[in-house]
Amino acid sequence: MGIPRLLHVGIKDVSFGEGVTVIEPANIYGCAIGDGSFVGPFVEIQKGVTIGKRTRVQSHTFVCEGVSVGDDCFIAHGVMFVNDLFRTGGASRDPADWKGTSVGSRVSIGSGATILPVTICDDVVIGAGAVVTKDITKPGIYIGSPARFHRAA
Amino acid sequence: MGIPRLLHVGIKDVSFGEGVTVIEPANIYGCAIGDGSFVGPFVEIQKGVTIGKRTRVQSHTFVCEGVSVGDDCFIAHGVMFVNDLFRTGGASRDPADWKGTSVGSRVSIGSGATILPVTICDDVVIGAGAVVTKDITKPGIYIGSPARFHRAA
Amino acid sequence: MGIPRLLHVGIKDVSFGEGVTVIEPANIYGCAIGDGSFVGPFVEIQKGVTIGKRTRVQSHTFVCEGVSVGDDCFIAHGVMFVNDLFRTGGASRDPADWKGTSVGSRVSIGSGATILPVTICDDVVIGAGAVVTKDITKPGIYIGSPARFHRAA
Repeated sequence: MGIPRLLHVGIKDVSFGEGVTVIEPANIYGCAIGDGSFVGPFVEIQKGVTIGKRTRVQSHTFVCEGVSVGDDCFIAHGVMFVNDLFRTGGASRDPADWKGTSVGSRVSIGSGATILPVTICDDVVIGAGAVVTKDITKPGIYIGSPARFHRAA
Repeated sequence: MGIPRLLHVGIKDVSFGEGVTVIEPANIYGCAIGDGSFVGPFVEIQKGVTIGKRTRVQSHTFVCEGVSVGDDCFIAHGVMFVNDLFRTGGASRDPADWKGTSVGSRVSIGSGATILPVTICDDVVIGAGAVVTKDITKPGIYIGSPARFHRAA
Repeated sequence: MGIPRLLHVGIKDVSFGEGVTVIEPANIYGCAIGDGSFVGPFVEIQKGVTIGKRTRVQSHTFVCEGVSVGDDCFIAHGVMFVNDLFRTGGASRDPADWKGTSVGSRVSIGSGATILPVTICDDVVIGAGAVVTKDITKPGIYIGSPARFHRAA
């Protein structure tokens, strides 16, 4: 029988802009969060992430290493970003095997969405529960699993 | 470099019935929770929500403003309710742009389901991982993304 | 107006192997977690669960009663295991109505996946956002809702 090593969530080595609000408990480390942004409770944001200005990251969302999000975005509740496509036949601990995700500005991502490593351009809406598996290069509304273009916004 | 405003989850301005159990940490505010109900950990329930009697809201679930849930319901783990359809071309901060959700009594919603703003009648079962996009007016079992009628219960 | 009973997440009656790390807050009780495994924050692992050696259970994941996971697995973020198929016409509080899930070794399960009660053999990859509704008896990559065989790993 072993004694586990217990660590605790917290805010460590984060570069905050002016006027940011965070609801704790949240696990946020090694990232940058721009002016006027908001981070809800039960959120994890990993190292190397950049979040722009006036962007909201709502409760229960996980933002992994390799993600950048622009300004005036709304990342709703329970959104899961992914950086490891398991291309080595399973999960990899080596960041060289991961891919990044770039989210533009004025992007809204609905609750429960899953975002594989992709590029999403400005002015995009992702529906709740969508699974985004491919780059989105044209503004508009995308829904479903896998997410497909639905209509112009 | 700014200093973030840090708030903390908690239980504020909640009208509890008799015999309610809450597992903390949970973020529950401005809502009403009926006799004998249960709220699991890592749950957020927003203001204006009403939860009936003997209803269970399990861990990791998010219940947004505008939702009412009846009696004897089971809202499983990681269920995300949605009130903003992004109809203005993105997320709106104005509640006038949101739509409510009404869940009847004796409704069970499976883990990982996403519930867009709809009305769900009594005696409905929603499968795990379903995405409910339309009103459900007939008792029975609904599964899939988008959720469709599967069979009578 | 009632006064709710407030309980708090924690680690209770867990059999840990050597070299386990847990990030709190986490709600882990009555289960066994093998040598060198990791449990991220905002995780719940219920009683009777067994987790093998060198397995990672990432943030926001829920592992219900009746689940066993082998060695060298990666359970990503926001994964929801299910044990109640609501076969009685709704949620049941009687464990006799639940079904278990067995996950082999060297299995990677992507973020946001939902795992209904099934058996998953060794050397399987489940894509992010997948909904696994049937047993998986052949190694390989499975994606989608419901999850289907995609290709060999």
